[in-house]
Amino acid sequence: MLNEAASLDRVFQALADPTRRSMVERLSRGPASVSELARPFAMSLAAIVQHLKVLEACGLVRSEKIGRVRACRLEPQALTAVEQWAGERRRTWEHRLDRLGDYLAEQPDEWDTEDEK
Amino acid sequence: MLNEAASLDRVFQALADPTRRSMVERLSRGPASVSELARPFAMSLAAIVQHLKVLEACGLVRSEKIGRVRACRLEPQALTAVEQWAGERRRTWEHRLDRLGDYLAEQPDEWDTEDEK
Repeated sequence: MLNEAASLDRVFQALADPTRRSMVERLSRGPASVSELARPFAMSLAAIVQHLKVLEACGLVRSEKIGRVRACRLEPQALTAVEQWAGERRRTWEHRLDRLGDYLAEQPDEWDTEDEK
Repeated sequence: MLNEAASLDRVFQALADPTRRSMVERLSRGPASVSELARPFAMSLAAIVQHLKVLEACGLVRSEKIGRVRACRLEPQALTAVEQWAGERRRTWEHRLDRLGDYLAEQPDEWDTEDEK
């Protein structure tokens, strides 16, 4: 928990790149080897491995060598942390708007008051 | 929509910094002036203004000058985009696990088969 902020820093940083977001999207549909991950991209395997290292360093992806193949899979906790962080801020913001609406609804209607005079 | 990926790049990049996440958190509780936003941080007003510019450039925050005060408020759409992006990937991943569970449940139980021999 001490490193929660630092960890969110790295997860958000990792997801700021479109290639890495595509890799996460691919892995959300199931595990893949590095060459399967690389296939849709017009870049070297070395570049993909660099992106993979960033995703592993922040905990979004885990990989393991099985024989001659490196198998990669998504670790959903880091994704959930991002979803929760954004969701909590959005809900706080919406709750504030709701309270503002309640407050305004409780106020006497100035036009009605005007009519009654 | 053409710039949706580029926009997500910038939103994730903006949220990769703990000061900027704290500013978003503060603004989720209601609008604030730049000096109110700066108050909790041990940094210059100029540094806060720089962070504010990053948050505005990606659409997370909007500010407007009212008299001598710059009033800042949260724009929840960018936050929702982050929440949805992460949520969709998580749900795809969970759905895949559910289908795997169903598949395994449909398979004949090897131990039962063994017992029946």
